[in-house]
Amino acid sequence: MLETVRWITAEGNVLAGFEEGVPLLPGKLRIIDQTRLPQELVYLELDDVDEIVAAIRRLSVRGAPAIGCAAALGLAACAQHLEEKELLEKAQEIADQLAASRPTAVNLFWALERCLSHLTRCDKATAEELVREGLAILEEDIQMCRAIGSHGAPLIKEGMGVLTHCNAGALATGDFGTALSPMYVAHTAGRKFTVYSDETRPLNQGSRLTAWELQRAGIDVVTICDNMAAQVMKEGRIDLIIVGSDRIAANGDAANKIGTYGLAVLAKHHGIPFYVAAPTSTIDSSLATGDLIPIEIRDPAEVGAAEGVRVYNPAFDVTPNELISGIITEGGLHRPPYGFA
Amino acid sequence: MLETVRWITAEGNVLAGFEEGVPLLPGKLRIIDQTRLPQELVYLELDDVDEIVAAIRRLSVRGAPAIGCAAALGLAACAQHLEEKELLEKAQEIADQLAASRPTAVNLFWALERCLSHLTRCDKATAEELVREGLAILEEDIQMCRAIGSHGAPLIKEGMGVLTHCNAGALATGDFGTALSPMYVAHTAGRKFTVYSDETRPLNQGSRLTAWELQRAGIDVVTICDNMAAQVMKEGRIDLIIVGSDRIAANGDAANKIGTYGLAVLAKHHGIPFYVAAPTSTIDSSLATGDLIPIEIRDPAEVGAAEGVRVYNPAFDVTPNELISGIITEGGLHRPPYGFA
Repeated sequence: MLETVRWITAEGNVLAGFEEGVPLLPGKLRIIDQTRLPQELVYLELDDVDEIVAAIRRLSVRGAPAIGCAAALGLAACAQHLEEKELLEKAQEIADQLAASRPTAVNLFWALERCLSHLTRCDKATAEELVREGLAILEEDIQMCRAIGSHGAPLIKEGMGVLTHCNAGALATGDFGTALSPMYVAHTAGRKFTVYSDETRPLNQGSRLTAWELQRAGIDVVTICDNMAAQVMKEGRIDLIIVGSDRIAANGDAANKIGTYGLAVLAKHHGIPFYVAAPTSTIDSSLATGDLIPIEIRDPAEVGAAEGVRVYNPAFDVTPNELISGIITEGGLHRPPYGFA
Repeated sequence: MLETVRWITAEGNVLAGFEEGVPLLPGKLRIIDQTRLPQELVYLELDDVDEIVAAIRRLSVRGAPAIGCAAALGLAACAQHLEEKELLEKAQEIADQLAASRPTAVNLFWALERCLSHLTRCDKATAEELVREGLAILEEDIQMCRAIGSHGAPLIKEGMGVLTHCNAGALATGDFGTALSPMYVAHTAGRKFTVYSDETRPLNQGSRLTAWELQRAGIDVVTICDNMAAQVMKEGRIDLIIVGSDRIAANGDAANKIGTYGLAVLAKHHGIPFYVAAPTSTIDSSLATGDLIPIEIRDPAEVGAAEGVRVYNPAFDVTPNELISGIITEGGLHRPPYGFA
């Protein structure tokens, strides 16, 4: 299995998913540099706040759960170099710097606040306490991924074609991912199936990341362009769709990477079940419906266009609940009508 | 207006669409090298069969009508260098070479056969006769484009958003294009509207070619990724969709660039009218339905995928007639039920 965010202990072992042949440094945050995938697999081992901020900012680590884990364990790695008497004050400064790396990443703020709060509550503020809390966050993330995988895996039957969009996999979390976790669990159970991975323009997370990690895990994967999804469905190749989500409203409307809503419409037309997999932390029950979820419009330069031509680049869309067959969280498989409180 | 395929006369004038500042060579086939768009606008002026074959093969000129015109005028350009006594025989050899450049291009074969047939029927086989027939083919192409434009332009109202896919424009024909012709005609009539141009993966004809030529003509154009079409429709930005077609069955089922079928499904879901624009030569009434149209599967290398990952790359799809609001040909606007004989 892949490792995305791992803490390397002073004993020189990675917490989980040891990869043979990769040299280990103790007390470092270790992440795959996703900007260099799929061309080359490069690990970054970091304990300097500026380097960690830069890594998060340039998307070397991405995906809400992975960013949360990286921030918590990154804070712990930096804290090791502090004097004990200045630790509380300096840890706050480091956390502030880390929090500024991705201004809209809710998991990032949540993880850092939790670590600082732990530090103020424990008997003695030490770097070890930050390590402990960071590892607890990572462990909970692993458990969340596995639980989503267990609840979702029964949907995947022998011989099926499963479509996914963007990357909600091992590279986006501390473990099996969310949308991809049912696939890893079904694969581990010995079932054979084919995953169709949308390229996911404009940043190609599907062709660069999802196809790479699934192939590496030995799962049969086929890359298609986003505009081929309808044809692939029409040809009867797709039996099931599972995607991730960035934010889910109380009524089950789900925001996810641009292109997800279109897939849901196409799935309905072709009678294909469409599932969303996400941790319960993604559910924002303060929002009655998805209409209240703001859609981030990103830099036109991400889309390669002719010089001077206008570009419209919405990064997310919202899939209305009536197009969602089920929402898989670590708590179970939720069926409509959804009412998250 | 753009020029795509133009014959430069012995007097040193291009037949139509003279572009200031571009040096002219007499008796040459002049085409835009589309492989270098949108970065740079380079004209090729050709009268050598090997160069013309290479240009067609590497897609410097593409689009069925444009290829037909380029082949006919290319044959004429080459024929100028032949002795009159060997002309009939050598013209056949040149035509054979040109015909082999794109093995599935029906317009290519049709145009070359028509020119050779003209040559055998006329009083004296001369290069001038080939020029005459090539210019006749180009002139008919221009008339076809203008007629499609006239029939389709009334669909485009002031302030509308119009979505198109791939490039069925000036760059694909000898004049205004097919799907884009109604836009050029409406623009010429002074109407203001916005065209949304799908990127059209994997070869990006939309972002490279359609956006480039519409912007150059002064039409407001916005590039989007293919997977954004559903969101753009949901936001109420699209009032009308016009696409081209490569082959239309007797019942109106229409083959076009991959992604077209998905757009038609999304259009139906959002209640947006969906039109196909194509010359009547595209209608293959020997095919009862679109199920009989073979789908070309192209080189996986066109889709940038992680090393060793499988790619599925269907280049076309077929939109069933029940999703098509109307088919615009040079003969008029056809409404369902379609019955092309």
